[in-house]
Amino acid sequence: MTQFVGVNDLSEMVGTMGPRRFLRRLVDYLSEDFARWEMFDKVARVASHSPIGVIELMPTSDGTLYSFKYVNGHPGNPRQGKLTVTAFGVLSDVATGYPLLISEMTLLTALRTAATSAYAARLLARPESRVMALIGAGAQSEFQTLAFQELLGIREVVVFDPDPAAVEKYMRNASGFGLTLRAASSVEAAVSGADIVTVCTAVKGRQALVSRAMLKPGTHINAIGGDCPGKTELDRDILEDAQVFVEFTPQTRVEGEIQQMGPDFAVTELWEVETGRRSGRKDSQAITVFDSVGFAVEDFSALRLVHDLMEGRGKKLDLIPDLGNPKDLFGPLLGESETGAAVA
Amino acid sequence: MTQFVGVNDLSEMVGTMGPRRFLRRLVDYLSEDFARWEMFDKVARVASHSPIGVIELMPTSDGTLYSFKYVNGHPGNPRQGKLTVTAFGVLSDVATGYPLLISEMTLLTALRTAATSAYAARLLARPESRVMALIGAGAQSEFQTLAFQELLGIREVVVFDPDPAAVEKYMRNASGFGLTLRAASSVEAAVSGADIVTVCTAVKGRQALVSRAMLKPGTHINAIGGDCPGKTELDRDILEDAQVFVEFTPQTRVEGEIQQMGPDFAVTELWEVETGRRSGRKDSQAITVFDSVGFAVEDFSALRLVHDLMEGRGKKLDLIPDLGNPKDLFGPLLGESETGAAVA
Repeated sequence: MTQFVGVNDLSEMVGTMGPRRFLRRLVDYLSEDFARWEMFDKVARVASHSPIGVIELMPTSDGTLYSFKYVNGHPGNPRQGKLTVTAFGVLSDVATGYPLLISEMTLLTALRTAATSAYAARLLARPESRVMALIGAGAQSEFQTLAFQELLGIREVVVFDPDPAAVEKYMRNASGFGLTLRAASSVEAAVSGADIVTVCTAVKGRQALVSRAMLKPGTHINAIGGDCPGKTELDRDILEDAQVFVEFTPQTRVEGEIQQMGPDFAVTELWEVETGRRSGRKDSQAITVFDSVGFAVEDFSALRLVHDLMEGRGKKLDLIPDLGNPKDLFGPLLGESETGAAVA
Repeated sequence: MTQFVGVNDLSEMVGTMGPRRFLRRLVDYLSEDFARWEMFDKVARVASHSPIGVIELMPTSDGTLYSFKYVNGHPGNPRQGKLTVTAFGVLSDVATGYPLLISEMTLLTALRTAATSAYAARLLARPESRVMALIGAGAQSEFQTLAFQELLGIREVVVFDPDPAAVEKYMRNASGFGLTLRAASSVEAAVSGADIVTVCTAVKGRQALVSRAMLKPGTHINAIGGDCPGKTELDRDILEDAQVFVEFTPQTRVEGEIQQMGPDFAVTELWEVETGRRSGRKDSQAITVFDSVGFAVEDFSALRLVHDLMEGRGKKLDLIPDLGNPKDLFGPLLGESETGAAVA
């Protein structure tokens, strides 16, 4: 039987243990998996495009477990009350090829994106960072806030979003987090004085929401929203002056902020910092950028954690037949059916 | 909510309507989809190999629906009571990217493989074909038998398998089909006098189980088992003298019987015969070969049929969140959880 973790199962489980503890555990899993990055099968995502959206499959494997995520991107979905991006995923046993777990991944992707951001910031930001600017108060904003509060020690968040309803929603959701929250009237006002700048807007196209002149020395930028071809959020003058860190270079050159730069623009992969192969932040004055686009290994880590936490719990699905004789599929499954009378 | 069709759901549904009617409906769906072959997004399957097996994802889309199949191949599985090949699949709405259906596909793949064989034979075999040789009495054998009886009018099957237990299992399962069944002591004896030769063995490596001299003029060969690199079942002298038909040429050149031939070996795709763009069998004396490897469009047709037949029935899974405000994922899913106390 294959374990099923639905939206209700996952939100109950995360709610019961508390999202902070879940994020902390997930960062541990990410750290383990980034430390053995070279073991993973890293293939390009497989995209099926239509005029109004995309459906992608993102597989990876460490040789023991295999995972893939199904994820769509449909910017017009909110007009009919649906989500722009939804996802689900599967974790399988490489030894038998049998699926172990099917899980919802809309909520899980939000958690893994925030956990990956906090993981990267822990490697790259100044440890004394306390104030975070949050540009964009959409679906990802509360997750980023919790992760940075819990794992980085952020105590104050200054939020900016051109949509007052989004800011209000954010303030309501984050009001119980135990942080100082402030709404700013512009990107510049939000960023001013921040140690960490998290940019997670849904605005399409080449934007330059944040530019170099807005930043104080030593800022770490957590750039979430520049995550597909043609969509960026940072002025290129930041990239020209920063140390830029990525997940998987070939993918980020196409999808990330660095699509603005040439193909030889120097970047460092996070796993290289994790393993000590290359250094992270060079000094307390440097601008560091995590150019996040999301990679299959992070989904793998998240599914691995859910599988460990849900062991023995949740629903079971009969997705794969359990048969006595592998040469006999017909007998056990259709042997009792009406097969005698041929339609003449 | 996403519809779930498990092994029990599917075998109950097919058992109740009768596998013959299901196969007939599936051939109708295949015929519709092969007739509009050029509309489909045809990408290579994405394989993750390990030393003991492979896990593959096979996506396709017609622009309105999207499907993918997850399928493994692990030859060592039967030693631990598991199936060598299992599968499940997903059908989605291209307009929103939302999954409509998750279905078991181990049984469904057996049905679709048999239906595709019968569909191809209906296009290519002599209509007066009545006797079928069946080489290999494994998991696929009863499905092939039912499909050819129902859709081609086969009345007699002569089976050969070197494993007496497999032949016994086949005879038991097929005893109620209303056919004349005969076991032969060799491939040559089974093939002698047959109008159609179905070859579906699990033997690995380059085999030449059937050769040209065994065949009477006008035979149609339904070659199922040569379906991965390094695995073939026909002597190349058959291919040299036959009209060869395939599903999707680039894939069949790597996986099918024609991997024995050069890259320019002439083949015809089934959809070209379906649409009348190219002709099928040239005369009643020709040897025709359907070099079957299985393609994503056939899985698409099968999932489309299951979705239509199961409409409103079966279990529902909360795979995708149903939210009021697409910018607020946190509130509805984790708003009630314990977020206030930061771990200091």
